[in-house]
Amino acid sequence: MQRFALIGAGFIGSVHAANLAANPDVDFALVYEVDPQRAATVAGSFGAAVAHSLDEVFDAGTVDAVFVASSTDTHAEHVRRAADAGIAVLCEKPIDLDLAHAKETAEYAAQRSTRAMVDFNRRFDRDYAELKRIVDSGEIGSVELIQLSSRGPAMPPLEYIAVSGGQMRDQAVHFFDLARWIAGVDPVEVFATGSTMAEPRLADYGDVDTSVVSLRLPGGALVQIDCTRRTGYGYDERIEVLGSKGMAEARRHRNGNVSRYGAGTVTDDGLHPGWFERVKPTYAAALAAFVDALEKGTPITPSLEDGLKAQAIAEAATRSLASGRSEPIKY
Amino acid sequence: MQRFALIGAGFIGSVHAANLAANPDVDFALVYEVDPQRAATVAGSFGAAVAHSLDEVFDAGTVDAVFVASSTDTHAEHVRRAADAGIAVLCEKPIDLDLAHAKETAEYAAQRSTRAMVDFNRRFDRDYAELKRIVDSGEIGSVELIQLSSRGPAMPPLEYIAVSGGQMRDQAVHFFDLARWIAGVDPVEVFATGSTMAEPRLADYGDVDTSVVSLRLPGGALVQIDCTRRTGYGYDERIEVLGSKGMAEARRHRNGNVSRYGAGTVTDDGLHPGWFERVKPTYAAALAAFVDALEKGTPITPSLEDGLKAQAIAEAATRSLASGRSEPIKY
Amino acid sequence: MQRFALIGAGFIGSVHAANLAANPDVDFALVYEVDPQRAATVAGSFGAAVAHSLDEVFDAGTVDAVFVASSTDTHAEHVRRAADAGIAVLCEKPIDLDLAHAKETAEYAAQRSTRAMVDFNRRFDRDYAELKRIVDSGEIGSVELIQLSSRGPAMPPLEYIAVSGGQMRDQAVHFFDLARWIAGVDPVEVFATGSTMAEPRLADYGDVDTSVVSLRLPGGALVQIDCTRRTGYGYDERIEVLGSKGMAEARRHRNGNVSRYGAGTVTDDGLHPGWFERVKPTYAAALAAFVDALEKGTPITPSLEDGLKAQAIAEAATRSLASGRSEPIKY
Amino acid sequence: MQRFALIGAGFIGSVHAANLAANPDVDFALVYEVDPQRAATVAGSFGAAVAHSLDEVFDAGTVDAVFVASSTDTHAEHVRRAADAGIAVLCEKPIDLDLAHAKETAEYAAQRSTRAMVDFNRRFDRDYAELKRIVDSGEIGSVELIQLSSRGPAMPPLEYIAVSGGQMRDQAVHFFDLARWIAGVDPVEVFATGSTMAEPRLADYGDVDTSVVSLRLPGGALVQIDCTRRTGYGYDERIEVLGSKGMAEARRHRNGNVSRYGAGTVTDDGLHPGWFERVKPTYAAALAAFVDALEKGTPITPSLEDGLKAQAIAEAATRSLASGRSEPIKY
Repeated sequence: MQRFALIGAGFIGSVHAANLAANPDVDFALVYEVDPQRAATVAGSFGAAVAHSLDEVFDAGTVDAVFVASSTDTHAEHVRRAADAGIAVLCEKPIDLDLAHAKETAEYAAQRSTRAMVDFNRRFDRDYAELKRIVDSGEIGSVELIQLSSRGPAMPPLEYIAVSGGQMRDQAVHFFDLARWIAGVDPVEVFATGSTMAEPRLADYGDVDTSVVSLRLPGGALVQIDCTRRTGYGYDERIEVLGSKGMAEARRHRNGNVSRYGAGTVTDDGLHPGWFERVKPTYAAALAAFVDALEKGTPITPSLEDGLKAQAIAEAATRSLASGRSEPIKY
Repeated sequence: MQRFALIGAGFIGSVHAANLAANPDVDFALVYEVDPQRAATVAGSFGAAVAHSLDEVFDAGTVDAVFVASSTDTHAEHVRRAADAGIAVLCEKPIDLDLAHAKETAEYAAQRSTRAMVDFNRRFDRDYAELKRIVDSGEIGSVELIQLSSRGPAMPPLEYIAVSGGQMRDQAVHFFDLARWIAGVDPVEVFATGSTMAEPRLADYGDVDTSVVSLRLPGGALVQIDCTRRTGYGYDERIEVLGSKGMAEARRHRNGNVSRYGAGTVTDDGLHPGWFERVKPTYAAALAAFVDALEKGTPITPSLEDGLKAQAIAEAATRSLASGRSEPIKY
Repeated sequence: MQRFALIGAGFIGSVHAANLAANPDVDFALVYEVDPQRAATVAGSFGAAVAHSLDEVFDAGTVDAVFVASSTDTHAEHVRRAADAGIAVLCEKPIDLDLAHAKETAEYAAQRSTRAMVDFNRRFDRDYAELKRIVDSGEIGSVELIQLSSRGPAMPPLEYIAVSGGQMRDQAVHFFDLARWIAGVDPVEVFATGSTMAEPRLADYGDVDTSVVSLRLPGGALVQIDCTRRTGYGYDERIEVLGSKGMAEARRHRNGNVSRYGAGTVTDDGLHPGWFERVKPTYAAALAAFVDALEKGTPITPSLEDGLKAQAIAEAATRSLASGRSEPIKY
Repeated sequence: MQRFALIGAGFIGSVHAANLAANPDVDFALVYEVDPQRAATVAGSFGAAVAHSLDEVFDAGTVDAVFVASSTDTHAEHVRRAADAGIAVLCEKPIDLDLAHAKETAEYAAQRSTRAMVDFNRRFDRDYAELKRIVDSGEIGSVELIQLSSRGPAMPPLEYIAVSGGQMRDQAVHFFDLARWIAGVDPVEVFATGSTMAEPRLADYGDVDTSVVSLRLPGGALVQIDCTRRTGYGYDERIEVLGSKGMAEARRHRNGNVSRYGAGTVTDDGLHPGWFERVKPTYAAALAAFVDALEKGTPITPSLEDGLKAQAIAEAATRSLASGRSEPIKY
């Protein structure tokens, strides 16, 4: 049984709270949240207590692990305090929007042998895990081309965009991690090009809403990613992995299995309306894997290092958006 | 908030226990189970207390509703006691394997205006509910033909078969209910024929493992059901509804969305290994609908009357298996 | 090279004419058709000559084979004349609507060792041939349940119905043949029930437009067929074969592969508008198989005997429609 | 009725010969082919005469149109002679591997008002034509992202590669044309990167077998193409078009519709073994469109100009492969 504190009880924090409460190996003890009302509501719903200060979380010696789901600019500080306190930490990505600062934080934690995981939850999607298993088994031979689609249903608010770091760092980064993880190697070069098709005002932020990215892996295998912020048809992500002997595909998810047959067409249930419906089960699965590793003392992945590497790809992709040429990736 | 007792804590009772615990509008208070160890385990896992006698459940006046998930031969007695106590009751099907006794029980409850639901959980499947909505909306015109498949993955143990009432009463009955519910009318005639393809020893019980059933609805629309106990490819159920203007289909469910492309074939994730994986979400949905009706005082369906009607079809189907001819259905 | 005469140049006769012209091993020599204008048109389009009498077809000794595609009531006579003349014959089903007469005709041909095939073209459908291959290979174990759907897009004209012999003899008979062929055994018993859902005036002809049929095979395996005349969503046929170890399915065909993703739904290309678009390639394939057997002197299937057996099932099914009980099938 | 000569009777020339013979509006008169034996065989099979010299084709004044299916290095010369002779010309792509020479040839033909079409046959694929119709209808709003996959089943022989012009000019060019055609605008910029994953010896030819290409359209819409020469799972091409209001997809084609259900997996019929099985119907459709335009005197597309534009994109893509940066496209 692992005793947990949760930091941050906004939308995604509440999701983590429910998963902490439902996990049989977790004792969900504390909630810290800057808005005291929200802290009380979430704690009350799931049988946890409210922590009135961060000291209570980190210094009281009452918890084994902390789940960091607060605003991005606070992640690094919480990771450091967990490292100082010898507490395990499961941290929402990114460690810090500034890659250099993120690296320092990860090194700080590493020096203290902190048990830490960055929450790239999509690795725990049932279908993506099966893709990874297929690649690792050699069933499709060696990887030659990976294609990933990341397509959001609707433009996020501009206030969100303003602090997001841009489409590469905020959206594509999940798929940079998936590509690295599935291929089992680190990309060496990236080309990205993008446009503002859905929201022209993004240009004011130096950002794009529609982009395509090409990664080159060691040995020459290629990765292709397309990212859009607003589809008109729901939330859409999918992955294809071509190997030397075959291909494996994690298909789009649908929100149901009903077909309506009419004259000339068959109309099926469509895609999920939002990203959350699509990836919801991955949060509980990621938490369960973290808890399992803590209980068994086994290595934890995705590590903070994994988080840094995905960020490094996003940095190079952001440079390429501006330069119009392939950029080397510096890890 | 509705205060519940659960009677029966076997496999399916434990599923209901988890759903009672997770439902925000339920206060899961008591567990009664003939095996005291099991009672303690289930109560402990979900924060309920153990009831040491049925009197505690029915007479103490501490619960609003009882969930009856004990062995079939005890259902009727529990429904009567709930009726006597003025407690609402959600009862696993059937009320009683003996249709006459089941009818007496339902009448007893009706005379006391008992709030009661029979747990035909498949009505709460997302896809079947969508089928029903499509039919009711008139999108496919008037119903002309309904086709239902009910195919189990593996033969149940013979001890289970011995007390099950046979394939019509035990397995097909769920689909008799779905057919009635989707069509919105009561079948008038049934033909059934069956064989023992998977387990010859079923013949000793006068039972079959592979059967096809035809129902005739008022006005001439037809229903076709195929039932098998052991497929070799997992658990398989599906429904098609042909109307005068189109067709709607609730397709087979798959256990994932990964495709593997090889030379000449594409291999997709297959069906669920068992019935439970397929229908699991319907139990929570059925409970939620019951609780919602209790909270709002709205009518409850499927009612005990619905349970009786499905049983009446099963009785006539069982007669037809023996007679080799269409049998009228007597409600 | 086989020299052919075609008898009958209506819609389906014209289809056969094009296939005869396109087949590299066929010398398409003669067309006989009661309407001389039509005879001239079809012969002209495909480089054949017009035969002005049946004697020219059967007695002149100029052709190796005759393709009988004239009206049903003339089939038996043409088969006899082919038998007398020692000419091979490919005959549209049925040999004769009257089963006794059809039997006499088949015997007549058999006594003369006539090379003959009845044109159950669906056996030559790529997908159905693959189903048959799968069953024969043992991949799905022994056959336990076969399900066939036969659903026409639109009511045929009443004049057609009047001479069709009814839904069992006219429509279901193709699927009786497929069931026999796939299972590799002859059904022993049949139950059928039907209604007039699409066209009430069918009752005047003692016919139905919507029916379900159950066949029992030796050993207890079951077959389920649903037949409708008018779907509202195009032409629909499909087959499932459940075996003791797995299941094989020949899925519905679609008229294209385009999907349109919208909010909440995905709309795919639908079914073929009519039966002809669905089965068109099977006619050329059936002809090719016949020609191949003639060239090589190998056995010809489906034989006239196969035609009789499918008819015998249709007769028993027609009896069952009236009797409301399972009827034995007499071959 | 249009009287045709065919130049070139290799594999693809034979395909065209069969289509010329089968087209009811074509009088297939002459075959010219450098190998006289092959000329005789193809002419004999389809009722055409052998032309013993090009003068017979171009100068005798006996044909209305010529179908140029000879080796690539002869295309331009044949187009010029058709222009000189006032004969219509349907020319396999490309007009000439050298873009400057191709342009001169197209101008030469334009000055003489030659009726000419370049055989980008994929535009006549039923599904791609439907995609184009959907885009033009505005159903999915304005185009924002197009994704095309072009994946061959097996490495062509190195001798073929040596004269092919490379993956961009030989393989991707079809998809450059499709992208232009579907979007209805000309791309302005291209980035391409590639590797030799399947055949290392391609490096000797400065060629690649695995590549990804990004195109930028006027207004910022993006196009993504992935090209591979050898898949291990058959021939695979597909297109997705994302618009501002929805998405349309031309899905992969399968070689059949049979599914095999086993424990945990469902195995469907796979992709076509080769490109020819996939695109075969497009050749007859392209020819029919050309003949129809000749008969009606309507504009002919894809024009020689269309052929040049696709080539210009291929040139820029080839430059980008070498430069590692986005290249402007010069038409």
